[in-house]
Amino acid sequence: MLIVQKYGGTSVGSIERIEAVARRVYETQQAGNEVAVVVSAMSGETNRLLALAREIHPDPNDREVDVIVSTGEQVSCALLALAIRKLGGKARSFLGHQVKVLTDSAHARARIKSIDSTNLVDCLKSGTIAVIAGFQGIDENGNITTLGRGGSDTTGVAFAAALQADVCEILTDVDGVYTTDPRIEPNARKIDRISYEEMLELASLGAKVLQLRSVELGMKYNVPIHVRSSFKPDEGTWVVSEEELVEQVVVSGVTVNRDEAKITVREVPDEPGVAVSLFKPLADAGINVDVIIQNVSADNKTDMTFTLPRPDRARAVEILSKEHAQLTNRGERISWDDSIAKVSVVGVGMRSHAGVAQKMFELLAKETINIQMISTSEIKISCVIDDKYSELALRALHEGFGLHLPADQRGDVLPR
Amino acid sequence: MLIVQKYGGTSVGSIERIEAVARRVYETQQAGNEVAVVVSAMSGETNRLLALAREIHPDPNDREVDVIVSTGEQVSCALLALAIRKLGGKARSFLGHQVKVLTDSAHARARIKSIDSTNLVDCLKSGTIAVIAGFQGIDENGNITTLGRGGSDTTGVAFAAALQADVCEILTDVDGVYTTDPRIEPNARKIDRISYEEMLELASLGAKVLQLRSVELGMKYNVPIHVRSSFKPDEGTWVVSEEELVEQVVVSGVTVNRDEAKITVREVPDEPGVAVSLFKPLADAGINVDVIIQNVSADNKTDMTFTLPRPDRARAVEILSKEHAQLTNRGERISWDDSIAKVSVVGVGMRSHAGVAQKMFELLAKETINIQMISTSEIKISCVIDDKYSELALRALHEGFGLHLPADQRGDVLPR
Repeated sequence: MLIVQKYGGTSVGSIERIEAVARRVYETQQAGNEVAVVVSAMSGETNRLLALAREIHPDPNDREVDVIVSTGEQVSCALLALAIRKLGGKARSFLGHQVKVLTDSAHARARIKSIDSTNLVDCLKSGTIAVIAGFQGIDENGNITTLGRGGSDTTGVAFAAALQADVCEILTDVDGVYTTDPRIEPNARKIDRISYEEMLELASLGAKVLQLRSVELGMKYNVPIHVRSSFKPDEGTWVVSEEELVEQVVVSGVTVNRDEAKITVREVPDEPGVAVSLFKPLADAGINVDVIIQNVSADNKTDMTFTLPRPDRARAVEILSKEHAQLTNRGERISWDDSIAKVSVVGVGMRSHAGVAQKMFELLAKETINIQMISTSEIKISCVIDDKYSELALRALHEGFGLHLPADQRGDVLPR
Repeated sequence: MLIVQKYGGTSVGSIERIEAVARRVYETQQAGNEVAVVVSAMSGETNRLLALAREIHPDPNDREVDVIVSTGEQVSCALLALAIRKLGGKARSFLGHQVKVLTDSAHARARIKSIDSTNLVDCLKSGTIAVIAGFQGIDENGNITTLGRGGSDTTGVAFAAALQADVCEILTDVDGVYTTDPRIEPNARKIDRISYEEMLELASLGAKVLQLRSVELGMKYNVPIHVRSSFKPDEGTWVVSEEELVEQVVVSGVTVNRDEAKITVREVPDEPGVAVSLFKPLADAGINVDVIIQNVSADNKTDMTFTLPRPDRARAVEILSKEHAQLTNRGERISWDDSIAKVSVVGVGMRSHAGVAQKMFELLAKETINIQMISTSEIKISCVIDDKYSELALRALHEGFGLHLPADQRGDVLPR
């Protein structure tokens, strides 16, 4: 088999842990596999380097920041290569510019366009373990770029795709993907298999196990992703295409996102183009709006409510106040709320199974939790609620949809 | 003017010092110059990274060590670029692989073969300050290489040569090159101008102001090198070609090297090929032998004595004992002495001025210091003495050759 393994920052956070990773990598190879490893920076290193840059410049240039933070992975990948060599293995480090991880030029959040894996193929064929620096690439002009937080996941899946690997193993400090956050709901269960689509929803809803972009890449190139513990040998969670799921569960997981805020703009003229005038300035400022609700119109006026990342809320209100006053001069009232949470249930089974939304509303109502906003997709239902009910809501939904039970025993708790 | 400035690790050893360097660089540019800057790693960083590598592997692979230690300069050059930008200047960092500092593949002690300065020329023309990572390059296969201790000096001079700069300024924590080590002889004087040849001798004799290879490059491409303080604006020492020296002094400087040991092999058969049999195994082991003396032969046997770096002494004795016993089986006796020092006087004036050696021997004799070995070149005389006399010898020679006086007042202390 050709296996790509990706180890996160915690897994290589100390000399001892790097040595443990080296043993695992070497054993995987000695079991008869070709192995390429992608590593993150040692935990804390990226933040240390970022702080150094900000000590020099409060708003440091992205190009130079990428030069600085990319050294974190440069060091850890060479250290891991040394640790494997110490065990008697053959290993060689590869940096972004050495395996031509070509990206666009969007520093700090670059996207991979292509990879030249020729060197790697030769390396693996010769029995050498390739240790690749995650998170980093170069643009067309040879500038160093980085892929954003969690970018090493994407590096891992991208190399698995380029090398046509049998699996991309994401080795991390958790056992796999859970039905919900086990820190809030102790009865959360590890999911054995989940589809790319569901994983995409879970990742975008705040489950931090996998970077969103890595799941997109896995789905695009059909790379089986195996999320598992870097400390234990147990099987974790396989992220695969929907056809490969043994049985379709109606609901796979429940998530809560507590990092958003809500903004309401009242008495907006209900006429064509008003949404553009509201949201274009925000998009131009790089602010991503999430759930949007437009109330039914009265007197040719309407209310618009939307959620967005909480750190962007103050800036968004400022932009809206300025831009919108200029446009209409009618003194729309803008209000906001930072104390919200978004709870969501996700599952491919929803496609064929009606009544999941109804069941979700009932479960929340039973706890007298008021729903402020609702948003749905084919395989997801999200409700925005008061933040103080977020743990309660999560636990109620988790139990209500039977996620504390093994998958084959959930039948009777689900709507028919 | 086009100026290349090189700042050492102490000069960029903290955020405050990087900011001070940024001001100096920016002022130099604002005075109407094009400026390229070469920086070392922040002081202590290279050692920290080396220690990390050695924690993983007691004898770490050179290729991977270069990947690790080169991050020191990667970080410092981007930080300096950020600091210049903060002052309102335009600046851009360049790594070894981005300006194609092509070297051979001798990791940890690579030699620069060529530089592609096209990007830099465009950068400088546009009013941007180029901040270049010192010490690092890439070989033909894109592997990261480093140039060895002090390698940033060489990077600086190499870029000055490639850019046909008017001067390569080496900004450091001392004021310039001194007639001798001011920590031993408080009357040491800063030298205003010195020839490449003399500087080469001083550097190879242990004056640690400039890396030897950087002086060789300066001489080859006739790059004026200006060694000066990074903390003060004062003129330092100009290293130039002999023709540009205003007046030739007979003796420019006195040095002491206390890092060598002496090995004597007694009763070696005095026949052709014996020197090869002695020194080839040492050369094969990468041990550089310095001064060699062969005694006048008696009974077809002779004694060979040589000096070498003290850390290599134990290994050399082991190699010689083994190899040489095999060759002759005559039980040559090998002895060694770690308590030696090599004092040297250097000056281009020796070429035309006889009697300098005589004067040196007299000055040492007057202090009743016994000379164990003598070695000369066209512009240098070295004597190996007992290490305990090294400071005394240095001070005696410094005063005896009048180096405590301004250059134009030294006439009468010199032999006629």
